[in-house]
Amino acid sequence: MLVFIQHSGTANFYYATGIKLESSYHIVGERLNVLIVPDMEKERAARESKADEVVSYSEIGYHERRKKMDARTAFVESLKEFLRERGVTRVQIPPDFPAYIALNLNFSVEVVENPFLKKRAIKSKEEVEKIRESCIAAVKAFDFIRREISREKMCEELRYAVELYLFQQGFIAEGTIVASGKLTALPHFRGRGRIEEHVVVDIFPKSREHGYYGDFTRTVLLDGDSEIEEMLRVVIEAKQKGIETVREGITAKDVHNAVCDVIESYGYHTLRSKASEGFIHSTGHGVGLEVHEEPRIFENDDVLKAGMVFTIEPGLYYRNVGGVRVEDTVVVGRGGCEVLTPYEDWVKV
Amino acid sequence: MLVFIQHSGTANFYYATGIKLESSYHIVGERLNVLIVPDMEKERAARESKADEVVSYSEIGYHERRKKMDARTAFVESLKEFLRERGVTRVQIPPDFPAYIALNLNFSVEVVENPFLKKRAIKSKEEVEKIRESCIAAVKAFDFIRREISREKMCEELRYAVELYLFQQGFIAEGTIVASGKLTALPHFRGRGRIEEHVVVDIFPKSREHGYYGDFTRTVLLDGDSEIEEMLRVVIEAKQKGIETVREGITAKDVHNAVCDVIESYGYHTLRSKASEGFIHSTGHGVGLEVHEEPRIFENDDVLKAGMVFTIEPGLYYRNVGGVRVEDTVVVGRGGCEVLTPYEDWVKV
Repeated sequence: MLVFIQHSGTANFYYATGIKLESSYHIVGERLNVLIVPDMEKERAARESKADEVVSYSEIGYHERRKKMDARTAFVESLKEFLRERGVTRVQIPPDFPAYIALNLNFSVEVVENPFLKKRAIKSKEEVEKIRESCIAAVKAFDFIRREISREKMCEELRYAVELYLFQQGFIAEGTIVASGKLTALPHFRGRGRIEEHVVVDIFPKSREHGYYGDFTRTVLLDGDSEIEEMLRVVIEAKQKGIETVREGITAKDVHNAVCDVIESYGYHTLRSKASEGFIHSTGHGVGLEVHEEPRIFENDDVLKAGMVFTIEPGLYYRNVGGVRVEDTVVVGRGGCEVLTPYEDWVKV
Repeated sequence: MLVFIQHSGTANFYYATGIKLESSYHIVGERLNVLIVPDMEKERAARESKADEVVSYSEIGYHERRKKMDARTAFVESLKEFLRERGVTRVQIPPDFPAYIALNLNFSVEVVENPFLKKRAIKSKEEVEKIRESCIAAVKAFDFIRREISREKMCEELRYAVELYLFQQGFIAEGTIVASGKLTALPHFRGRGRIEEHVVVDIFPKSREHGYYGDFTRTVLLDGDSEIEEMLRVVIEAKQKGIETVREGITAKDVHNAVCDVIESYGYHTLRSKASEGFIHSTGHGVGLEVHEEPRIFENDDVLKAGMVFTIEPGLYYRNVGGVRVEDTVVVGRGGCEVLTPYEDWVKV
C-alpha cells in the first residue's frame, strides 16, 4: 500500500487534520487517515481532528524503545514498524519533510508535492468569506491609520497603532510594514524613524478566530516628490491591468506579463530584463492559512481556477529614490475576479 | 571541507543569523559563514544579518537553471555547484532539514543535532533579561485578570482580555489557556464556555520587540471542590520541590524525579508508572526564542548549566475531575535557580 506522510507544524497539516499539534504525523492512504501524536494529545486529537484514527507514541512502542536508544532512532523505528503492520510498502513525503526520518525510513520513499498544498490553493466559499473578513480588517486598519499620517509621526508608532487596532478587531498582524524614506527601496523593510515624503503601508492580518489571512498595501503621498508620484501612477495602472487580466483558464504568467508590460511601457525595468532595480519581485502570491501560499503569480504556467485567492502587488524600487507598491487580494471567478480589498488606489494626505 | 547547512523559518536560523528570511539557507564551516537568499532579500540580508557573506539565488545560477528544470531541482543543482566551488566535501544537516534537498545532495550527508540548538539552551545575560521581561508581562497579565474571574464570565472573554492587555504592553500572546470545568483534564485544552469551580490560566507571551517568550501558569479556585483543592496543594508542593532541586550540575531527570516523588507520595500517579491519568507530561521545557525548546526537563540525562532557562510545571489531570497546573519559568544559577515569574501559588477568588 502507498501512503503519504506529513508532519505537524505546517499549514498543510492543519488544513488536512483540522488541529494544531506538535511532534505529530499524519498518514493518509486508501482506507487510512491516521494521526500519530504524543500521548498527552491523544484525547484532544481524537476529539478535535478530522482523522479517522489517532494513535499515541506509546501505542507504536516509542517509549519502550526510548529506553534503549536515542529519541530520533526510537521514533523512526516505531514509525517503521507501524507502517509495516499496516501493510505499507511505499511512502510519499512532502519536500519539507524532516530529513532524519526521510533518510532512515528504509521504505521506497518518494518526495512529492504536498497534495494538500494544491487543494488549499482553491478556496471553498466558506474560506473565501474568512479571507474576506481579514482583507476588510486590513482595509479598515489602513483607513484608520491614513488619517494619522504626518511628518511629525514615526513609522514605529503608526505600525503599533495599526497592529493594536487590528488586535482589538480580532486579528493578529505581525511584520506590518509602515516604511518611509529611501530604505523603502528594500521591499521587505519594515520601516523606522520619521515619516518623510511617502509611506508604504503593507498590512496582512490573520484572524484570531479562524486563522485565515488578508493582504493589502497602499502607498501614501505626503507632498511633492515627482519621481515617487510618477512611479506610483505606473504601479497603480499595472495593478489595475493585472486585476482586469485575471480570469479562470489563463496562466499565472499571463497576469505577470500583463503587469510587466505596463511597467516596461513607461521605461521602468522588471525581472524580465534581469533588472536589479525596478519591479524586482513577482506579481503576487496565494493567501489563505499562510500569507504566502499557492498559487505564485510569476513566470509560472499554473492555470488560474475559480476559487483561487491571491494578491496583485506590483512595486517599483530604486535605491536612490525609494520604493512604492500597491496590493490587492482578489478571488478568481468565472469571467474575471473580485477584489477582496476594495479601496482607492491614489492616497494623498 | 565540512559544512553545516540550515534552512530559514526556524528559531535556530534566526538565532544564528540575526535575521528572519524565507527560502534561505545558512552555511557555516571553517572560514565560511554565508547566507543564500532570494534576490530581493540580498541587500537587507547584507545589511541586517550576522553572516560574513550573502549570495543571491541568481548568483548561484538558480534563475538560469530554472528555465530548463523545475524549481526544486534547479535549487538543489545550484546549491551543489556552490558547495563544490567552495571546496565542500562533507555536509551536516539538522534533523528537520527539508527532505528534498537532503535526499538529492549527493554529498556525504550526515544528520546531526543543530549546534545552535544547544547554544540557545544557555542564555546570555542579555537574553535572560529579555525573557524576564516577557515573564513579568505574563505575571502582570495574570494579576490583572484574576480580579475579573467570576462564575458570570466566559473563558473566551477572559482570554481576550489577557491577550489584549499583553498586546498593549508590547507582547503577542497566542494560544493562551483560560480553561474551566472537566475538560481541563486535557492539558492543552484552551478553554471555552462559562467559568466553573476552578480556572487554569497558562500565559506565554512573546515580546513584539525582541521575540523572546515567557511562560507562566496559575490555577485559580473559585469555591470548594475539595478534590481540585487537594490536587492543587500537591502540584504546588511538587513545583516548589522542583525549584529547590534545580542547580548547576544535576540532570534534568533529577528535577523530574524530585517532582514526581512529591506527587506519588500523595498517592497520585505519574508517567513513571505509565499512568494515563495523573501527572501525564514532562516537568518542563526550555523557554527562549521558542516557547518550547532545550532543555527538556523529563527523564533525560541533560546536565543543567548556569544560564539555562526553563519551566517547572507539574500538573494533575483526571477525566472525571478536571486538571490543575502551576508553572514558573526559572534561570539556573551557581547554587540554585532564580524564579523569573514570582507570584503567589495559591490563588482563590
